[in-house]
Amino acid sequence: MAVYTQVPDDALAAFLSEYDLGAPLAFKGIAEGVENSNYYLETEAGRYILTLFEKRVNAADLPFFIGLKQHLAAKGFPCPSPIAARDGAALRTLEGRPALIVSFLDGLSPRRPNVTQCRELGAGMAQMHLALADFDMVRENSLGPASWPRLWAGREADAEGLQPGLAEAIAADLSEIAAAKPQALSLPRGTIHADLFPDNAFFLGDHFSGAIDFYFACTDALAYDLAICLNAWAFEDGGGASLDYNFSKGAALIAGYESVRPLGAAERDALPVLARGAALRFFLTRLADWSSTPAGALVKPKNPLEYAGRLAFHRKVNTAEGYGA
Amino acid sequence: MAVYTQVPDDALAAFLSEYDLGAPLAFKGIAEGVENSNYYLETEAGRYILTLFEKRVNAADLPFFIGLKQHLAAKGFPCPSPIAARDGAALRTLEGRPALIVSFLDGLSPRRPNVTQCRELGAGMAQMHLALADFDMVRENSLGPASWPRLWAGREADAEGLQPGLAEAIAADLSEIAAAKPQALSLPRGTIHADLFPDNAFFLGDHFSGAIDFYFACTDALAYDLAICLNAWAFEDGGGASLDYNFSKGAALIAGYESVRPLGAAERDALPVLARGAALRFFLTRLADWSSTPAGALVKPKNPLEYAGRLAFHRKVNTAEGYGA
Repeated sequence: MAVYTQVPDDALAAFLSEYDLGAPLAFKGIAEGVENSNYYLETEAGRYILTLFEKRVNAADLPFFIGLKQHLAAKGFPCPSPIAARDGAALRTLEGRPALIVSFLDGLSPRRPNVTQCRELGAGMAQMHLALADFDMVRENSLGPASWPRLWAGREADAEGLQPGLAEAIAADLSEIAAAKPQALSLPRGTIHADLFPDNAFFLGDHFSGAIDFYFACTDALAYDLAICLNAWAFEDGGGASLDYNFSKGAALIAGYESVRPLGAAERDALPVLARGAALRFFLTRLADWSSTPAGALVKPKNPLEYAGRLAFHRKVNTAEGYGA
Repeated sequence: MAVYTQVPDDALAAFLSEYDLGAPLAFKGIAEGVENSNYYLETEAGRYILTLFEKRVNAADLPFFIGLKQHLAAKGFPCPSPIAARDGAALRTLEGRPALIVSFLDGLSPRRPNVTQCRELGAGMAQMHLALADFDMVRENSLGPASWPRLWAGREADAEGLQPGLAEAIAADLSEIAAAKPQALSLPRGTIHADLFPDNAFFLGDHFSGAIDFYFACTDALAYDLAICLNAWAFEDGGGASLDYNFSKGAALIAGYESVRPLGAAERDALPVLARGAALRFFLTRLADWSSTPAGALVKPKNPLEYAGRLAFHRKVNTAEGYGA
């Protein structure tokens, strides 16, 4: 949540001269997203978000992310719609960084999503999956199971330092998930958001108004997107170190999803291992960020233990019914 | 430039229920101002900025700042206009902090103001002074000459560490300005902005569209406000350690001011000591911030040497003509 690259007014004016958006009326750095610099931009033509991609995003992936949003916007799915300059290109360069203007999306991110919002989110995600059924670009999930052993290697002591016994538990998660071979299951695949946390979802009241921040989107099992959301939306801080699965929220999320796209039998069967895998993926990336972020850094890393708590829950669930499906 | 206090969507909804602004449509933390948390807020009624006042602002001063903006807005001067809740009060509480909604002001801050913008800024500042002529609230300038010895005490070594010889030069500035007794001169007084740097001024193209961030405003000599702006708008980085006074910009700033409110003879005579005093004030507060900010802090302190360079220039100027007046 920071602005890494400052854009002077004269550089902005030169940049905008390539577009048919008129003169700038307002321009403010906003605290949205942790990876890139984002600006609220208002011009004579309307309201936009200008993103400058910082080094953590692979520039080779940008055509996929932009194509994805163009596809969704063309299908009427509510997401930031890339704005092309007069030459037809949406991806440009500003202050030495890849830069993109997208349409402004109304809505607020819920801090503590309620049951209705979970149901709406589930339905919205399923609509997104259907809208992307004929999107033909492909991006491998660079944070899939194949990446996990590499993320884990050398961090056993960091995990153990966070919570005694955690290193052994994580090692067991890794080997048990690998043994289940979730990648070999024939689950329906497609383009998934892969990071649809509450801060990447907008609502107007309880109504889902859109999704943002598609920079982890990739080609993977559709049910894995749902499993990520069960982790991100249905757990609640129970006070102290405790973390509770809110069965009502989880059930609403799944029911909302299935109201648009019913899960197949294989997807239902895979839900526990997918949910456990999703928790492991976020635990491992948070552990890596936690270990490598210097004290006092601009962006505070998120606590990996929030995902260790989810893993402890998933280890005990063997059926989709255990999540309210 | 940071958001210090997070406002959850449910807390915002409860806060907005006291206003006649309708439901929130968008809410984003913005990187504006270094003292407070600011949010871009859009509701069914329009666009606003929501400010949460953090500990560096003295809550006892808030009625002055809000009254000042209400007065200016009522006179048609372009500035953020405080929005009252249904009970008539603009100053409220949110997440334990004093909170204020103001109208959204269009415009962009210039990184490198041009001569036309300097002229416009001068005229705009004079209009602000005239609009405030009948504003009857008073706030002492807490960063006036009486505060400087206290700011300087114990920081001689810090200054010397920044630039050899600087401690002696600053001590001479302090005693020479004290000897000139600028506070005893009978200069026209009123309400001044006292911090009208380019990042607190908005332009649409070259047209001045308003001023923001009145949190240093106080009752002082009007010409001191102009002297602050000469420091903030008319110096340019000459490359390396050099800093140049841009005579065209300074002259345009003064001419713009005088096109609305001509300076009196006493004000012209005082301009050099006021400009030197203004540079000293910003040097001293930056030095204090520089010394007290831990490495890696969220907000990077501004380099005091930028104002040491200005002081070096002011020491050689004895007449208003030296600034282009």
